Amino acid sequence: MPRSEQLLSLRWGDMDAYRHVNNVEVLRLLEEARVRAFGVPAADGSAPMLATGMVVARHEVDYLLPLDYRPEPVAVHLWVERVGGASFQVRYEVREPDPPAPAAGGPRTYVRAVTTCVSYDFDAGRPRRLEEAERARLALLADGPATG
Amino acid sequence: MPRSEQLLSLRWGDMDAYRHVNNVEVLRLLEEARVRAFGVPAADGSAPMLATGMVVARHEVDYLLPLDYRPEPVAVHLWVERVGGASFQVRYEVREPDPPAPAAGGPRTYVRAVTTCVSYDFDAGRPRRLEEAERARLALLADGPATG
Amino acid sequence: MPRSEQLLSLRWGDMDAYRHVNNVEVLRLLEEARVRAFGVPAADGSAPMLATGMVVARHEVDYLLPLDYRPEPVAVHLWVERVGGASFQVRYEVREPDPPAPAAGGPRTYVRAVTTCVSYDFDAGRPRRLEEAERARLALLADGPATG
Amino acid sequence: MPRSEQLLSLRWGDMDAYRHVNNVEVLRLLEEARVRAFGVPAADGSAPMLATGMVVARHEVDYLLPLDYRPEPVAVHLWVERVGGASFQVRYEVREPDPPAPAAGGPRTYVRAVTTCVSYDFDAGRPRRLEEAERARLALLADGPATG
Repeated sequence: MPRSEQLLSLRWGDMDAYRHVNNVEVLRLLEEARVRAFGVPAADGSAPMLATGMVVARHEVDYLLPLDYRPEPVAVHLWVERVGGASFQVRYEVREPDPPAPAAGGPRTYVRAVTTCVSYDFDAGRPRRLEEAERARLALLADGPATG
Repeated sequence: MPRSEQLLSLRWGDMDAYRHVNNVEVLRLLEEARVRAFGVPAADGSAPMLATGMVVARHEVDYLLPLDYRPEPVAVHLWVERVGGASFQVRYEVREPDPPAPAAGGPRTYVRAVTTCVSYDFDAGRPRRLEEAERARLALLADGPATG
Repeated sequence: MPRSEQLLSLRWGDMDAYRHVNNVEVLRLLEEARVRAFGVPAADGSAPMLATGMVVARHEVDYLLPLDYRPEPVAVHLWVERVGGASFQVRYEVREPDPPAPAAGGPRTYVRAVTTCVSYDFDAGRPRRLEEAERARLALLADGPATG
Repeated sequence: MPRSEQLLSLRWGDMDAYRHVNNVEVLRLLEEARVRAFGVPAADGSAPMLATGMVVARHEVDYLLPLDYRPEPVAVHLWVERVGGASFQVRYEVREPDPPAPAAGGPRTYVRAVTTCVSYDFDAGRPRRLEEAERARLALLADGPATG
């Protein structure tokens, strides 16, 4: 079953005083990839993928190579692992798209990360169990060949 | 002579606690449109458009309609006015692209803004006069039919 | 009647690739000064100062001097002008506090700005007239000697 | 030997559409605590703590409790562990200060995190070994009773 591949634009303002994309802004890109892969959440937190939304419980992020601003987008690959009773993991790779941007010089992976998400009932203010239909939708994003 | 039209993506994180794109983040979009229209500046501030870079001296921003996050980009139109000895104005309109995003419901203009830019020598730490060749390049972005 | 003076901390991440506090982030500081002077808004937009909240209709911002990151806060002076039927203006000065931070070297004003705010009913989704009690509270922030 | 305790202000704009401090902005707070504990880096990356600066190689962040905006600061405790040949770990806890802010209702820990930092020579563009004097300075931030 396919992973998601999102082409996301950088912003010049993502760079910090060291003139690389700031490590914190990389998390903003991962958030954006998650929102686009899972569907835009409504005001109550519900989204096409999850009936009552989710919260981030944990991030692990490995910065492999510096990422510099350029007008061309980067590719964020995203897939789902370890779907449990009330949680699941989202894995990502921030990569040079194919073909690579001229400034990048070739294929490479900039960042690998994993987020532990907890399905959450914002009205009740607490975690809740994943429904069977939700598990089925999450399974559509399990690892496999990339999809658009 | 043509104006620039940039299609720029919003990020879910651009929204604030009122669930609209935050008024401050709109300035980030204008900055990004400026960087893309003028060319990415190098470490010394120089860019394809301006030999030694520029600084922002003044912004005026009118928020006409609330802008909500959606995966589809917005269009930022940008053109140059009032090229003076060491300064010029950049005018912008943040608009619904054509065709409009499904969530937008039709053509509309969200924001109008103007930035006063001062050509600046970062090495010397002071404003400097625009060269004739720079004025000619800026004139390419004077108002007129939109270009890509 | 007194103006408000807020001491606000910068963040290293407010700097951009030019190693000054980015012009967009200055608007974030003005927003923070506004929230602190007017009271933290609740989920429905209501705040101690305004029963149903307000929206930003226009900013004018003049950048007078570059502002560099330092651990010491800057002072944001804020006062209210031109209270109309459904709108008012907030004026600001971003200044070196007294005593100045060691890196600043003396008293100076970095930014002057004015925001046009419109009193807004978020439930109804439209502007609304200011109540007499709100006008009285806004008048407490009219220009005059600074207050804490 | 003491840990560092930094009192850091939140910004209203740190909240996202769910009206909690956004998980990405928490990383911005950790960055700010790091900059303040280690000394403000110069343009070449050098800082009082480290002669040629450092880069972030990895973050692990656990979000224990939701953090809401309030005008009062939060406390970020920070200490150093596992000082190696060219790297070290920075551990953090984002906590309610003592006394707690009125809106918080009591002592609590919002976030625990650890960052792997690599000492880096920005001029040469590569990691470099820590000097003995740097190891000694880092040891001053090893775990122990909190210090201001």
